Amino acid sequence: MTTSDQFKQAAHKLLVIPGPIEISDDVLFANAHPSMSHVSPEFIPVLGDCIRMTRTVVDTAEGQPFLIAGSGTLGWDQVAANLVERGENALVLHTGYFGDSFTECLETYGANVDQIKAEIGATVSQEAIESALKSKKYKVLTFTHVDTSTAVLSNAKAIAETVRRVSPDTLVVLDGVCSVASEEIHMDAWDIDIILTATQKGLGTPPGLSVVVASKRAIEVFNSRKTRVTSYYGSWKKWLPIMKAYESGNAAYFATPPVNLIYAFNASLTKITKSSPSLAQRYELHRTASQRIKTAAKELGLKPVPLEPTSAANGMTALYYPDGLGAGDILPRLVKKGVVVAGGLHANIKDKYFRIGHMGISAVEQSRGDVDTVIVALKETLAEARAAK
Amino acid sequence: MTTSDQFKQAAHKLLVIPGPIEISDDVLFANAHPSMSHVSPEFIPVLGDCIRMTRTVVDTAEGQPFLIAGSGTLGWDQVAANLVERGENALVLHTGYFGDSFTECLETYGANVDQIKAEIGATVSQEAIESALKSKKYKVLTFTHVDTSTAVLSNAKAIAETVRRVSPDTLVVLDGVCSVASEEIHMDAWDIDIILTATQKGLGTPPGLSVVVASKRAIEVFNSRKTRVTSYYGSWKKWLPIMKAYESGNAAYFATPPVNLIYAFNASLTKITKSSPSLAQRYELHRTASQRIKTAAKELGLKPVPLEPTSAANGMTALYYPDGLGAGDILPRLVKKGVVVAGGLHANIKDKYFRIGHMGISAVEQSRGDVDTVIVALKETLAEARAAK
Repeated sequence: MTTSDQFKQAAHKLLVIPGPIEISDDVLFANAHPSMSHVSPEFIPVLGDCIRMTRTVVDTAEGQPFLIAGSGTLGWDQVAANLVERGENALVLHTGYFGDSFTECLETYGANVDQIKAEIGATVSQEAIESALKSKKYKVLTFTHVDTSTAVLSNAKAIAETVRRVSPDTLVVLDGVCSVASEEIHMDAWDIDIILTATQKGLGTPPGLSVVVASKRAIEVFNSRKTRVTSYYGSWKKWLPIMKAYESGNAAYFATPPVNLIYAFNASLTKITKSSPSLAQRYELHRTASQRIKTAAKELGLKPVPLEPTSAANGMTALYYPDGLGAGDILPRLVKKGVVVAGGLHANIKDKYFRIGHMGISAVEQSRGDVDTVIVALKETLAEARAAK
Repeated sequence: MTTSDQFKQAAHKLLVIPGPIEISDDVLFANAHPSMSHVSPEFIPVLGDCIRMTRTVVDTAEGQPFLIAGSGTLGWDQVAANLVERGENALVLHTGYFGDSFTECLETYGANVDQIKAEIGATVSQEAIESALKSKKYKVLTFTHVDTSTAVLSNAKAIAETVRRVSPDTLVVLDGVCSVASEEIHMDAWDIDIILTATQKGLGTPPGLSVVVASKRAIEVFNSRKTRVTSYYGSWKKWLPIMKAYESGNAAYFATPPVNLIYAFNASLTKITKSSPSLAQRYELHRTASQRIKTAAKELGLKPVPLEPTSAANGMTALYYPDGLGAGDILPRLVKKGVVVAGGLHANIKDKYFRIGHMGISAVEQSRGDVDTVIVALKETLAEARAAK
């Protein structure tokens, strides 16, 4: 019986798309917590601890987390509605699908957006960023740390350094939906102003929570707005007192928090930030899992979407189908073996590649054997697909 | 051993606040579903069925549901950002806390808002509505079907009739966060344009999903907007194709849906719409539970916040503390007996009253004995509190 045969018998297929990811049983169990009042003394510290542990994950001492029911997309609305005023300029570094979406979101709230577009699989050069920052005053610069559509990893530290050197007041916004807890992030040391993410990827929790952390600089910019915040549900005017209240052990009400999901998030954050392996070890385990899959893919003749190994994500892998084969040859065969990967998402190459996620417990809990399962299934699938041609 | 003594031993305290409510084990279990891809063939019909069953709950044939990760509040943003254009007029019927919040939300997106304010415990009269509608052209009229802060139930059918007679183009927006599935609603027959709600009350599911249903008229008004939609995350331009895709059995992507919560919502909706007791019987069971609690409260000398029995909610009860007693005398004693009720929320009377929820399984599954538990605990508590004075 091969590894992939074993998985056919499991309760569910192995979910290795770049989010939602496999969730551990204890986190799922916490998601089934008996219903609790959102203002009860039992629940208040559960949310309070989530706020504190979110800070730990992104390595910030004083960043202000916002935990709000919603998808990762709501983080873009929060940036656009709270930090950018109508007519101000935003610079979007574009490494795939999500650069276009963030652009549209910023424009919805009245920003003038310029994009610097990298070719598919590449990152934006520091020279291009520097030149754009010198051409006009930007309120925010945004980049997708790992673009889920291409698996391209941008150099967050270098981008922030360029911004601080050339345009120190520009807020650096890191879209970390596909990077937080799977790629190394040091919010304070790198001087990042906004990290926005969601729970269903590296954070190992079901989807449904928008997670944003704002630097002191970002909160100061927010506090000195001249015009009204342009979202109600996403308004920090509403949420800042709520987050401060729960963190200090008091209840406050603006909108009902997703109580069960907060229990689940707490369970996952506790594992990530307060148990072994450490956060640093977790990053290393993600790199190891990533290298194993990327090496196996190379041996199978699969070409990665990222052009340079140094700009390839550690939490996911995007691979072009080999010559003559397409989605229909690969994905259904993998599903039959109990392995669920994702098709393409970037419009220009949508049907030419597929994506594998290796975040959270699939990368960290090596005893699960998820990486082996994926590699074996991939090998078998390619052999079968090639034989069938 | 009294009923309240038994509850002390239960795994958790009985949650009888006006939302979140007690959730059945099968719904909690569904919330712990193994992680699934949001675009998998297994998940697509789960979301598709939620869309269809949501229609059933509000009794509409062609209303368009929107199921989006968020709290009930996000429904206000959807109304304000999709249906009202900058400078248009909105009329808010105010029966408590939520009238003020909805007003602020509408203003955030550029509406000019007029309020008609009922005195605390009362509803807005049809004469006042008629007079306001004659004074100027309103794009939308909003009302809180059950105001969670006062337990006042507005007459949705009468309000819609007045609007159709006096100002037929005005969209009728029913805030049903505290009424859907616990109070009778017939969206089509009453000609309501928007019903917005959330999952954690009558719908018997953990919090974290904004549920909005839009009439054909509302969708036409949306489609004939002259200006850009003013929210990104809440934009129906984005969500309408997604909802249509999932309902027709296809995957589509805008933002990751809260997959586990959708499984939970599906489990609860299946019970509500496809099993015994019927929806009509459920409304009757809510009325019965409500009458039992209100009668017991009257016998205990507790005065309800709603001034008229005909405008009192069936899913919750708001009661003034009796003379000489306050929150500190009542709420901690109830908690000790394992019963969690809610304090006041309406700013003007915050410390003078408390609220009991009796929605979902606490009202419908009589064998649970939740209503008895509440009544016994209330009786014991009042006796103890009065004796201690």
